[in-house]
Amino acid sequence: MMKTVLLTGASGFIGRHCIQPLITRGYQIHATTTKQQAAIKGVEWHQIDLHDHHAVKHLLTTIKASHLLHLAWFAKPDEYWTSPHNLTWLMSSIELLRAFIQAGGKRTLFIGSCAEYNWSYEHCDEVKTPCEPKTLYGAAKHSLYLLSNSIAKQHQHSFAWGRLFYLFGSHEYTSRLVPSIILNLLQGNEFHIKHSEQVRDFMYVQDVADALVSLLESEVTGAVNIASGEAIYLREFASLIANQLNLPHAINYANENSIHARLTAETTRLNQEVKWQPSFTLQKALEETITWWRRSYYG
Amino acid sequence: MMKTVLLTGASGFIGRHCIQPLITRGYQIHATTTKQQAAIKGVEWHQIDLHDHHAVKHLLTTIKASHLLHLAWFAKPDEYWTSPHNLTWLMSSIELLRAFIQAGGKRTLFIGSCAEYNWSYEHCDEVKTPCEPKTLYGAAKHSLYLLSNSIAKQHQHSFAWGRLFYLFGSHEYTSRLVPSIILNLLQGNEFHIKHSEQVRDFMYVQDVADALVSLLESEVTGAVNIASGEAIYLREFASLIANQLNLPHAINYANENSIHARLTAETTRLNQEVKWQPSFTLQKALEETITWWRRSYYG
Repeated sequence: MMKTVLLTGASGFIGRHCIQPLITRGYQIHATTTKQQAAIKGVEWHQIDLHDHHAVKHLLTTIKASHLLHLAWFAKPDEYWTSPHNLTWLMSSIELLRAFIQAGGKRTLFIGSCAEYNWSYEHCDEVKTPCEPKTLYGAAKHSLYLLSNSIAKQHQHSFAWGRLFYLFGSHEYTSRLVPSIILNLLQGNEFHIKHSEQVRDFMYVQDVADALVSLLESEVTGAVNIASGEAIYLREFASLIANQLNLPHAINYANENSIHARLTAETTRLNQEVKWQPSFTLQKALEETITWWRRSYYG
Repeated sequence: MMKTVLLTGASGFIGRHCIQPLITRGYQIHATTTKQQAAIKGVEWHQIDLHDHHAVKHLLTTIKASHLLHLAWFAKPDEYWTSPHNLTWLMSSIELLRAFIQAGGKRTLFIGSCAEYNWSYEHCDEVKTPCEPKTLYGAAKHSLYLLSNSIAKQHQHSFAWGRLFYLFGSHEYTSRLVPSIILNLLQGNEFHIKHSEQVRDFMYVQDVADALVSLLESEVTGAVNIASGEAIYLREFASLIANQLNLPHAINYANENSIHARLTAETTRLNQEVKWQPSFTLQKALEETITWWRRSYYG
C-alpha cells in the first residue's frame, strides 16, 4: 500500500529534517507551509493556514493521506511559554485530528513536550511521572494530548504522542542556547552559562526527526519520550562546544539557581517498543552543528 | 463594595440552587440562560448564547461583574462522556475567562469533576492524586483546569476550581440514579442496582451549591473537591431511599462489576481552607428529594 503523509510545520526546525527519513521509508509527502517553499523532490507543498478549518478539511479530503505528522505550533523563543497562540494551536490541532479521522486517515503523531511533566520528579517516565504543567505552553500541549487521545480512542484511530526534551542542530532560532554559544564564540565573545550545574537531555535534531518518523511508522500508541537517554551537565555540554571551537576558556560558568537541577528522560518506550536508537554521538552532532553555523555565519 | 456575580447555567440542576446562597451573601446576580426564564427577585436574566464570544464580551463589559461562577456545560446523561460538545464548551469557557479578566473581573470559580482523577487511586486528593482522565468529558474538564489556571496566573487573577463528585436533589435528569430509583419505586416497579458494592460520595445539590458559593466567596485558589467526605455503599444508599418510601424489598442488589469499587473524596481543603461543612444529613437530603419527586410525579 502507498503510504501518504501530511506533514505540518515541514519548513520548521524539526519538520525540515523529517523529509528525508520519510522519503527513505517510502512515504509520499504532502507538506503544509504558510510561505512559498523551494521545490523538493518527493514533496508536494500546500500553502495553507492551518487555522482555516475549512481549507484544512478540503485539503484532507483531497490528498487522502494515511498518516499525519503534525509539527506546526507557535515556537517563538521565550514568547511561546505564555502566548495565547497556544490556545489557537490547541484548537486548530484538535480540528485537524478530527478532520483527518473523518477523511479516513489511519495513524497520527502529534508533538508534546517535557513541559507537560511535573519537574520536581526530575526523571520523566511516560507511565509513572504525573503531568502537571506549570506554563500555558505546557498546559496547552498536555490538553492536546488528553483530548486527542480521547478522540482517537472513540474512533479506534491509532494515535501517538512524541514528548520532546532539549534539541539542537541546524536552522535553530539563534537566540536559543546552542546557537547562542556557537555564534558568540565565533564572534570572539565570552559566553556566560547561567545554570552550569543543571543536568539535561540534549538530542540532535536529525535524531529527533528520525525518531519521530520511526514512531509514526510503528504501531506504538500514547505518549513516548523522544530523548537521547543520556543526560549531561550544562557545564560539560558547553565545554564540548568550546573545545571543538578551540576556545576552552571562552565560557564563564555560574550556577545562579538550583531549582530543577535535573530533568532527564526515561527512553525505554522509544528504545524497546519503537525499537529506535540514536545515530549520532553528542561529539559528532555538535561537530555537524558547528560546521553548519560556521558556514551560515561566514556566509 | 458591591459584589456582582455573573452566574452561567443559572437555570440548570446546580445553578438554580446557587441563587439563594448568592443573594444571602449579598451578591447582585446577573444570570445567563438560553431560554426565557421566570422573573426571580435579585436576579437579572440575560438571554445569551455562551458560544457567541462577541455577545459574551459585550455582556461582560456592560455588567462589570466582580465574580464569575460558571456552571454551564453540556450535561445530557450518558452522551456527555463522549460528546464533541465538550470541546466547544472548553473553548467557550476559556474565552469567557479571558473576556472576564479583560473586563476587570476579580475572582472566578469554574467547575471540574472527579472524572479528572485516575480512579485506580480510589481516594481522590487534590494535591496527591494524579489526574489522568479516561473520557473526553474528563479530558475537556481537566484541560479547562490546566489552561484556566495558567491564564489566571499570568494575569494575577484569583481562580478556583470546584471538583464535583456524585450529586442528587430536585430537578435532576430523570434518567440518573436517584430519580430513577425514586420514580421506579413510586410507580410500583422494582429497581435493579447493578453495582451494589461500589462506594461513592453523594452530596445533596443544595449543599453543593452552598459549598460552591462559599468557595467563590473565599480566597482559596486552585482545585478543591466539592464532596460530603462521607462515602457510602450504593447498596446502603439505595436502601435508605427504599426505606423512606416504605418499600424495603423493592430493590434488587447485584454486583456485576468490581472495577472502581471505591471512589472517595478528600475534603480537607473544603472543610479547613474554605471552612465549609454540609448542612444536610443524607437522611434529611433524601427526605427532601423524595418529597420533591413525589410532588413532581403526582403533579
